[in-house]
Formats: sequence, structure tokens, C-alpha cells
Amino acid sequence: MLIEIGQKAKETSYILGKMGTDLKNAGLLAAAQEILDEEDEILKANAADVAKAKERGMAPGLVDRLELNHKRIEGIVEGMRQVVGLEDPVGEVISMKRRPNGLLIGQKRVPFGVIGIIYEARPNVTADAFALCFKTGNAVILRGGSDALESNKAIVTAIRNGLKKEGIPEDAISLIEDTSHETAREFMRMNGYLDVLIPRGGAGLIRTVVENSTVPVIETGTGNCHIYVDESADFDMALDIIFNAKTQRIGVCNACESTLVHRKIAKEFLPLMKKRLDEKNVEIRADEGARSIVPEFTAATEEDWGKEYLDYILSCKIVDSVDEAIAHINRYNTGHSEAIVTKDYENAQKFLNEVDAAAVYVNASTRFTDGFEFGFGAEIGISTQKLHARGPMGLLALTSTKYIIYGDGQIRK
Amino acid sequence: MLIEIGQKAKETSYILGKMGTDLKNAGLLAAAQEILDEEDEILKANAADVAKAKERGMAPGLVDRLELNHKRIEGIVEGMRQVVGLEDPVGEVISMKRRPNGLLIGQKRVPFGVIGIIYEARPNVTADAFALCFKTGNAVILRGGSDALESNKAIVTAIRNGLKKEGIPEDAISLIEDTSHETAREFMRMNGYLDVLIPRGGAGLIRTVVENSTVPVIETGTGNCHIYVDESADFDMALDIIFNAKTQRIGVCNACESTLVHRKIAKEFLPLMKKRLDEKNVEIRADEGARSIVPEFTAATEEDWGKEYLDYILSCKIVDSVDEAIAHINRYNTGHSEAIVTKDYENAQKFLNEVDAAAVYVNASTRFTDGFEFGFGAEIGISTQKLHARGPMGLLALTSTKYIIYGDGQIRK
Repeated sequence: MLIEIGQKAKETSYILGKMGTDLKNAGLLAAAQEILDEEDEILKANAADVAKAKERGMAPGLVDRLELNHKRIEGIVEGMRQVVGLEDPVGEVISMKRRPNGLLIGQKRVPFGVIGIIYEARPNVTADAFALCFKTGNAVILRGGSDALESNKAIVTAIRNGLKKEGIPEDAISLIEDTSHETAREFMRMNGYLDVLIPRGGAGLIRTVVENSTVPVIETGTGNCHIYVDESADFDMALDIIFNAKTQRIGVCNACESTLVHRKIAKEFLPLMKKRLDEKNVEIRADEGARSIVPEFTAATEEDWGKEYLDYILSCKIVDSVDEAIAHINRYNTGHSEAIVTKDYENAQKFLNEVDAAAVYVNASTRFTDGFEFGFGAEIGISTQKLHARGPMGLLALTSTKYIIYGDGQIRK
Repeated sequence: MLIEIGQKAKETSYILGKMGTDLKNAGLLAAAQEILDEEDEILKANAADVAKAKERGMAPGLVDRLELNHKRIEGIVEGMRQVVGLEDPVGEVISMKRRPNGLLIGQKRVPFGVIGIIYEARPNVTADAFALCFKTGNAVILRGGSDALESNKAIVTAIRNGLKKEGIPEDAISLIEDTSHETAREFMRMNGYLDVLIPRGGAGLIRTVVENSTVPVIETGTGNCHIYVDESADFDMALDIIFNAKTQRIGVCNACESTLVHRKIAKEFLPLMKKRLDEKNVEIRADEGARSIVPEFTAATEEDWGKEYLDYILSCKIVDSVDEAIAHINRYNTGHSEAIVTKDYENAQKFLNEVDAAAVYVNASTRFTDGFEFGFGAEIGISTQKLHARGPMGLLALTSTKYIIYGDGQIRK
């Protein structure tokens, strides 16, 4: 059955690859409209998922992510319509050069072909991921969390009905309805059919995909993000940035999880930081040096330095120099987002150059690492690996390239 | 031991990442000179490898790839010196834009960090791969074939001695001396230490790496390359291109393995093709239609369509249209290089647009798919996957990017 889905997606991908932007946009609008039109069925299916999930004792936070309502359906539809407005990257020829032998060699943006998405029980991802993959001419095969199966089936049905109305092959989107682990593992090894696999979800899901997949994976990721307060930092700016990055939204990967403070300013800065973070009751887990200044800090263990809390908790360590800060970050970070607050030119440049992460900031909150904030108009995830795409991924990250070569009979000597 | 190599490589990669081009070039020249200076030791080690390999009955073709001599050492050294002349891509800021909130967001080219290379018994790859990885600021960990172990040890020692003379950390290059399969498998799962893994070798090696690796892999590849002779083709041009692509060098991935000929010209063209390929005694395995025109062709089986012969053998099939040619190619090819010979504008564009391969040619030999022929001045391999790099990979393919963001206190609303 999986193979059949793969074959149909592959065949369809050749049709999507040559489809013009106008028809793709029409398909997106029709799919969005159909989701509105089939809202009752979708909400009914979702209610069944939610009831089952609650029965099985799903945590309230997860139930919230699973649950749909009229406003959320509108949000999903609005998201799909926004993708219509984005520029279609497919077909652009990035460069075209003539070689000494007369060959004209160009590099052209093309769809990947078939993209697999593995995700958790968040039905909004179903429509989101489809919209971005479809706009870039890719067929998509979805494997969502079992807890959202009925919701996903209803959404995928609506999208397929919408595509059909525009005469677009419905296999542009398919859903794997068998949510067993065996089938998931089989899916991760469909090298002949899948061109790339993107996991979206928590650290456990991503690890499972990375460990088991033979299809190329784009690892999206966890964020153990640091803010380093340099000795020359503007205190007010540092406090605003830390407060924002830690507390504006705690459950996201670009939230700050750790602060490093230069020893020379620690005595003055740390009590201010405590006072500011007390507004949101943030627990601060600190090293010995910081605790000798603010005894109310709890004691950090080695484990804290590597931790993505996703909670009102922040680790804190005193460092002697920007070099020590960089070394600590490169040792413990997850390659996501890192910031320095400083007035010093050299330290700013050093931090930008030497910190190994997808996004490195001077004097700004790490919370900006996001496809919308970066101006991409969309986001399929944030890559924390270095292959293909690094950082927020917009439409461009869902394309590959191919070389096109115009000759007039050249042979190799 | 592997972990220790990984840790050292990782630490060294931070130093290489910020090293200026001048010092990297000095290191390359010193390493090249040291290979010349230690030629006797290298040739002695190589002679031991060759003797052992012959004893174990290694095929002459493979022994030829393993064997070094003065001229080959000079070739290796010349290759390293050429890399000095290439532009260093590291540090380039590809784009820098101001967002409405004042954030200045740029994307900068950076090294991967640590690159792993798994390859067969070809000691020239040892120096080659080092030069390209080092020039792009990456540390490299090599795992070569066991048959070349002594040669590789000698070459790596020379390179490390050369680097030392320039005060560059020797762990810029390391060799895994334990060539067991267990250690290779462990190497393929060193996610904390390796940023990317590039297999260089035959289909079997590449499959093993793709199947077992949890580190991101760049698949380099096999080539089942086709040439389609359209009904409007210039016959002389088609014959020259087929002859060149099939026979100029048979053992390479960009050699032609299959021809597709339009039915309308088959009767006239196929006997000419046979005559031309007879010059090199190329066996032609053809479908029924072609054999009814040239009965001397042997009968092709289904298996032939998917075969990379790497030999004086060519498969041949008659097709009714450019569409049938494209469908056949997309079904059987390996995503490497494909060519059409035609005078027809529409068919040329259709072929360029719809064939799914790293390099698609109009009126030229597939043999041009090569980093040097494409003007990159170097080549680490030819990617047949769609992630990160597709087609010949030069220095650029050995870099990643990171976002650098200049703010003045921005926080997210």
C-alpha cells in the first residue's frame, strides 16, 4: 500500500513539476475553499480525535494543539491563501555561463519531487505542509500522529476535493492512514519514491527519523539558545532581550534557555536580571559564581547547560571573556539561535564569526528566528543541520536545482 | 578511539573555520611539498599495499587504481597546488537585507565543520579530499579502503607534517586506521562530531553508507545516462555525441549507457550507429523494434534498461515521441546526466524541463558532467541526490551558511 502511494506521488510529481504558477495558485485557493466548505465534517472528525485523546489521558497542552474550531479553521485557510501570494521559486535560472568550448551551462530551480512529512498530532500542519510543498511543485506524502488521524483524513479529503475541481491530480497530497511504527519505518526507507523527508515535532520524533531514515532528512530542531551579556552591554537592552527571549513564548525552539554573563558586570547585572524575570516567576539555575551574588538562584548541574527547558526556567553562568562564552555555546548549543548583547565592535564580530549556529544575533532577541520574521512569508521548519538549508526554511528550501546545458554538438576531448 | 578522533577534529574545525585564506593556502602548499619530500616513504608503503593486494588476487583494474609512482605523486601534488589558486568561498555574505523592524539579516558562507569521507582503495583521493575540505575550512576524517591503508597512512603523515610546519593543527586531517566494518558503521553514526559524510566509490559502497548512516550523507553516484536521438536530429552530430559519450572513457559515471531513437529515423539511423560503434566493438543490446532493423543487435532484457555497464555495451530502444523518451528516462535513470540530440526548439525545451536528472543536455555529450568541465576548478564528486548539492560538486558544495543578524535592541512583539 505504501509503495502504491509512493508510485502515485512520484507520477504526480512529474505533472506538478511542469505546472504553471497560475494553476498551482488556483489549486491552493480551491483547496482552501473546500476546507471551509467541509468545515462541519472536519470539526466532527476532530471532535472524535479529541474525545479519544482525552479518554487516553492526553496532556492538556497536547489536546490544545490537536483541537480545531471555527477560528482555527479560518487560520488554516488564511495561511493557505497567503501562500498564493508568495513568489514561485520554481523555474528560476540562478546562473548561466558560457564555457570556453561554447557550452552554455545554467542552474535552474526545480521541485524536489516527492516530499515526506512526519509529524505529531497537529492537524494544522497537514494543510500548512501541503500548501508549501504544492506551491513549489512537489507532491507530498504525510504521516501524521495517530491521535489526529480522523482530523487529517478529513482535511486531506477536502484538499483532494478542491484540487479535483481544478483538474489537478489529487495524489499531489496523500496521507498514510496506517499509523503503526512499522509503516513509519518503512516510509523512512522509501528511497526510490521519496526525495526528502522532513520531520516536524519534538526531539524524540526527530531523533527517531534521523536514526531510521535512509531517505535524505532535513533535521528541524530543538533549540538550546543562549544570550551572552558582554561586559560592555547596555543593561536595559540586555534585560529587555533576555525577558523577551525567555518569556514571550516559552514552548518554542527559539526561546532563550541560558544566559552567560561577563564576570565584570555580574555583580551589578544579575540582581537586575533576577528582578526582571521575577515578573514572570522564572526559575534561574546558576553556577556557583552567580549564586554567590544572588543566593536565591538554584544550583545548576552539568545537565542544565545542555537543556531545552521550554518552561519558565533559565540557566545562568558567569564567564570571563567572550571567548569563554563562545566555547561554552559551541559545546552545549543545538545549533539554533544565539545572541550577544554588547557595545564592543570586536566582540560583536568575534561572536558572529565564531559561534556555530543557524542564526547568530547581535543586540536582538533570539525569538526572531522564524520564516515570517525573516521575510520568507512562510516556514516549513527551522533546520539545525548544515546540509541544504540552515535556519528558517521558506519555499526556497523546498526546491532543488538541476543543470541545464545548451550545446551545438560538443564532445569531450 | 573514534570518539577521540572526532573530538579533535571538531575542536580543530573551529580553528580552521576562522583561518584566513592565506594561511590555508600556505598549509596546502606545505602539505604538497611534504608529499614530494616524503615520496620514498609513500612509494614504499604503497608497494607493500600493492604486493598484498596482488597476493590476495585483486583485479588488475583495481590494482591500477591503487598503485602510485613518481608521475602519480606529481599529479597528486599538482592537484593540491591547483586548489591554492581557487577562490575561497568561506566568509562571503550572499545576501543582506533590512527588515521593517530594522534588523539587518545576512546569510554568510561558512564551513560545514567536520566532513567524513568513506572511499575505496584509491590513495589519490586521500590528498584530493583533504585539499578541498581544508581549503573550505573543514576538518576531514578519512576512512579509506583497507587495501590502501599503508599508502594512506604515509600520505596523511606527510600532510600532517606539512601542516605542522605552518603551525596549523595537524588534526585538520585524520585517518581511521581500523578498517573493520564495525568501525565504519560506528563512523557513519557519529552525529555529534561529523557534519556530513561523503561516500566516494562504487554503487555497493554508496548503498552501504546510505543504508547505515545517521549522519547527513551526500550521495555521489552511479550514472545510467541516456542519449535520445530525436526525429529532427543531425545524424553526424548524434553519431559523434553517442560515440564520444559511450567510448571516450567507459568506466566513468557520465558515460552513456543507453540510446533512445525516434521511430521515424530508426531505419536510417541505427545502421549508421552500429557502423560507428563497431569501431570500438561496442555490443548493442536492443529492443525488438531495433533488432528488426539491425538483426546483429543482441536482445535486451528488462534488466538492461536499468544497467550501468561501465563497459563497451550500450542498450538501445525505439521510442515514438520525445514524451516516451522522457518517461523511459525518468523511469530507469539514476538522476545523473541525460542528453537529447535535436533541431526542434519545442522538444529541446521539453526535454530540458521534464527530464529528472542532475544535468540535462541539448546537443552535447554527457561526458561533460564534471567539476573541471563545469569550471569549478575542482570536484569532490557528482551528487545524484537533490538535497544540498546536485551534479558536480566543487568547493561551494563543501560549505554551509549561517544567518548573521545585526540589531539595536529589537525584541519580538
